[in-house]
Amino acid sequence: MSYIIDFQPVGRRGPCPEGGTLLDAARALGVDLASVCGGVGSCGRCRVQLVTGELTPVTVNEEAELTAEELARGYRLACLAEPLSDCRISVPSESLTALQRTQVEGLEVPVAVEPSVASYVVALDPPTLEDLRGDDERLCQAVHAAIGIPVRLSDLEVARLATAALRRLNWRARVVLREDEIIHVAAADAPWLGLAVDIGTTKIAAYVVDLGTGQTLAARGAMNPQIAYGEDVIARLMYADKGPDEAARLAALLADELSRLAADACAEIGAQATDIVDAVIVGNTAIHHLFLRLPVRQLAEAPYVPAVRAAVDVKAREVGLRIAAGAYVHLLPNIAGYVGADHVAMLLATGVADATETTLAIDIGTNTEICLAHRGRLTSLSCASGPAFEGAHITFGMRAAPGAIERVRIADGRVEIKTIGDEPPVGVCGSGILDAMAQLRLAGVLDGRGRLTGPQVRQANGDAEFVLADENRSGNGRAITVTQHDIRELQLAKAAIRSGIEALLADAGITAADLRRVIIAGAFGTYIDVGSAMTVGLLPVLPHERITQVGNAAGTGARLALISRAQRRKAQAIAHSVRYLELARTPKFMRSFAEAMYLK
Amino acid sequence: MSYIIDFQPVGRRGPCPEGGTLLDAARALGVDLASVCGGVGSCGRCRVQLVTGELTPVTVNEEAELTAEELARGYRLACLAEPLSDCRISVPSESLTALQRTQVEGLEVPVAVEPSVASYVVALDPPTLEDLRGDDERLCQAVHAAIGIPVRLSDLEVARLATAALRRLNWRARVVLREDEIIHVAAADAPWLGLAVDIGTTKIAAYVVDLGTGQTLAARGAMNPQIAYGEDVIARLMYADKGPDEAARLAALLADELSRLAADACAEIGAQATDIVDAVIVGNTAIHHLFLRLPVRQLAEAPYVPAVRAAVDVKAREVGLRIAAGAYVHLLPNIAGYVGADHVAMLLATGVADATETTLAIDIGTNTEICLAHRGRLTSLSCASGPAFEGAHITFGMRAAPGAIERVRIADGRVEIKTIGDEPPVGVCGSGILDAMAQLRLAGVLDGRGRLTGPQVRQANGDAEFVLADENRSGNGRAITVTQHDIRELQLAKAAIRSGIEALLADAGITAADLRRVIIAGAFGTYIDVGSAMTVGLLPVLPHERITQVGNAAGTGARLALISRAQRRKAQAIAHSVRYLELARTPKFMRSFAEAMYLK
Repeated sequence: MSYIIDFQPVGRRGPCPEGGTLLDAARALGVDLASVCGGVGSCGRCRVQLVTGELTPVTVNEEAELTAEELARGYRLACLAEPLSDCRISVPSESLTALQRTQVEGLEVPVAVEPSVASYVVALDPPTLEDLRGDDERLCQAVHAAIGIPVRLSDLEVARLATAALRRLNWRARVVLREDEIIHVAAADAPWLGLAVDIGTTKIAAYVVDLGTGQTLAARGAMNPQIAYGEDVIARLMYADKGPDEAARLAALLADELSRLAADACAEIGAQATDIVDAVIVGNTAIHHLFLRLPVRQLAEAPYVPAVRAAVDVKAREVGLRIAAGAYVHLLPNIAGYVGADHVAMLLATGVADATETTLAIDIGTNTEICLAHRGRLTSLSCASGPAFEGAHITFGMRAAPGAIERVRIADGRVEIKTIGDEPPVGVCGSGILDAMAQLRLAGVLDGRGRLTGPQVRQANGDAEFVLADENRSGNGRAITVTQHDIRELQLAKAAIRSGIEALLADAGITAADLRRVIIAGAFGTYIDVGSAMTVGLLPVLPHERITQVGNAAGTGARLALISRAQRRKAQAIAHSVRYLELARTPKFMRSFAEAMYLK
Repeated sequence: MSYIIDFQPVGRRGPCPEGGTLLDAARALGVDLASVCGGVGSCGRCRVQLVTGELTPVTVNEEAELTAEELARGYRLACLAEPLSDCRISVPSESLTALQRTQVEGLEVPVAVEPSVASYVVALDPPTLEDLRGDDERLCQAVHAAIGIPVRLSDLEVARLATAALRRLNWRARVVLREDEIIHVAAADAPWLGLAVDIGTTKIAAYVVDLGTGQTLAARGAMNPQIAYGEDVIARLMYADKGPDEAARLAALLADELSRLAADACAEIGAQATDIVDAVIVGNTAIHHLFLRLPVRQLAEAPYVPAVRAAVDVKAREVGLRIAAGAYVHLLPNIAGYVGADHVAMLLATGVADATETTLAIDIGTNTEICLAHRGRLTSLSCASGPAFEGAHITFGMRAAPGAIERVRIADGRVEIKTIGDEPPVGVCGSGILDAMAQLRLAGVLDGRGRLTGPQVRQANGDAEFVLADENRSGNGRAITVTQHDIRELQLAKAAIRSGIEALLADAGITAADLRRVIIAGAFGTYIDVGSAMTVGLLPVLPHERITQVGNAAGTGARLALISRAQRRKAQAIAHSVRYLELARTPKFMRSFAEAMYLK
């Protein structure tokens, strides 16, 4: 015998098998009720409201997960409540499985929330003279009984904390599992959070994510503190190679900064860093090795091989990251010495790995990685573009902060500028310097070889320069200029990237016109004027609609790998499938680079 | 087609299948050739000598494992050499599987050497511009190719060391595996050693073992440095419970002492502590918790439950033990708060778990654990015997060192003593004090309630005392005596142990006469006069041939678990099968204890 269940407002109606729960009935009828805990009454996600009919009595778990008011209004957990008559059930929209949409500007990546850790609330029998089991087996056996799978408490640090926690919590606790390992014991009402981090050579982006819903609750940015030991990674590799103390110092700088970001982001949402039970970190191979204190000398010498290329799972505390004591950090796999886990994350977030049409993805940074997806094959390379587009080594270069010139137009010899926050100009950020270069070329002030010429060019400090904002307009009393030296730096940077693009096209035997889609990732790439990029030859000339500018795709990729086991597996597959193209070994590379120096 | 192989001098003869190795042929014919590495040519244990016939050419591995002279004399590795004709093969006796006999005085435990780690020598292709694999996958793939099983390099610390080691060793190395994890990379000719430690409340015994042969190469003893924080474990538990710093201090004392013992023992055999790739540690539950920095308060309060009762596998470096960076330490499981892993090890070494006749096993120490094996069931309890038998709290008590009185006889009122090293007496050790008590009772100087009486008893310092050696015989100018106070201490100690024995007998519904065998383990137990022990009532009166005195059985158990996976599994089974008897809850315990105070 069975009862008829009518799910509202989704409008599904059908029988519930005898002894089955409302969740069983919902699943049979294709009602996508959320169930993070797998139907054991501990996640509270499958709450539904009884409209008419009779259900089995309210269970202890439901009393824990639902408020008295909710219970009074007929709310129940579908995984625990069984019908005792025909029923009409109202399903709140928040109880329906929603694909989590993770935003990258211009892209949307839908993934099912299925993190690498799982959370359950369990109640234990306290020890007595008749029940002298150790705390370890008492906990493991309670979890085993609750979820039907044997588990282990193999981390001593978790065991150390569990003994006190279980007594403090009166033997009822939230237990977080990673595979069959208990990694965290906390109060039943504690949040369980994840941390995703993209460590760039220059900047760090950190995200705190609710692992139950997949939603990003807080985001934080900071400078990479290793900058004090070198703006580029080579200088840092050299420093770390001096000895174990130096390597430890660089690693600790990052670990401390990440811990601080995590704590700040958690504080913002009323949580604690110890609520973070899983983390995913991406970065380029050098940053990855510096963070993990892996040997780096072989990264800096031909043939530039990583010490570790495979994905890494390591206890967070082993790498100095202060989150939950038993939590792991997952580092996505690297591809080569100069194409790292951040590139894998970018490919994951932008969907390039699944591209069916010829697609180019560029992550512009101090090191620029480029991937060409063509005929189902992914080929990536890295080019040393340097930090010019981030404002470094540019006379008035600055980061994208208030007062930075971000747009430049030259019309009829008049210079129009736009600054961030419309403040008086104090310098030029990456997108502004690219605009300036393009506009100077279009205005004929810059010749094809990159020389500043003509009456508008003045000499100062032994160099030719062009004034973007004179002393009177400037916010700091100094004229903001673009110098011949700046132009040379920019030419080198854009030539590095462009020759990389050309090497990939040549390798595939295609031309720029064959590119159906170009994805530009990274902070700089998001803000540049695509027209200017084409004018100076940074990008090949293509219809604008083929170009998509996305934000921190690497950070998004890290978040995807955090909230989805499937995405984490996919990252592995991507890393294995990408062919690495060693730029120095491509034919005619030096000629291509020299050609790319020109401004057409 | 197949060739006929004649194995000498074992006298086995039969066909070798085509494409099969000499090892295959030996196995098919029941010749027990040793093969620690599983037949991949890396352990060098299966060496044989070709007498007549032709074999496949000498391989690279054989060149590595055999000397030029051996090769010239026709020595080969049976696992790599394949016959190309009928052959006569001489098998040296050292190449035959010998069961390793581990000595416990009076016992012999034969086990097949099959440690929890395995060692292989592999050669890798160095990286080139055409082969840019990371060091991690280069190593894993080489091992995979050599042994046919996928392996992982998941320990960052091992990965850190491997990158430098592989280059230093010119891409040929000994790789030590634990299950599928690479835990050690070393020179191909480096030894691979194991460490077994029994941490007693008072003493530590450490053994360094060759994991290839199972032989103990060096042994060291030391005092447990935690003694500075309390002679008994309760005082140390109280100290550790004060806070994390105190707990860390006690743990570090042990870890440092163990590291020092390991280094010294290795130095003695020309090896280094970093050659130790596996370790087994046993100790009582309190020592186990103090060493692992586990919470201890619940161990000191009823119902006295361990934080961790299951066996523990933890990276040695995580507990401060300085051996190979990737090595694990295995701690045998505990049974209860006061019956620990050392008891499990003792049961393993003495074979009590397999006893078919009613057997009692006693490990006498500051805490004395007793196990009764009766009708296939093991029941254990613990009694707080105190350190009196180790010489503590005894007026002239001392450890078993030169000048300690170890034997006492009183004949016709004359006292005969024997000292360790036949030095002039300076004190009394455990066996001497037990003898003195028994002889005084037999001489009637001691009455049944334990009072010193009669003309030979003198008063000094407000207490009655009996002189064992007067000022003239003594080595330090002071009379060596046994005082009334000493007798009370000994009565308490022996009553604790004897009432424990009686509780086990009562629980099983048997009497002492039913005991077919009594095993006495521990340093004190090894040296006591069994007759004296019966005279004072420490042991029930039984035919002497039923009593076996063994040495440090716990240390032997640790060694067994080190060299044999099967023994490690067996320890688990023992821990699970032992029923714990809580002495305080046995009926009539206090009465039994009071009765046991008497000297019959």
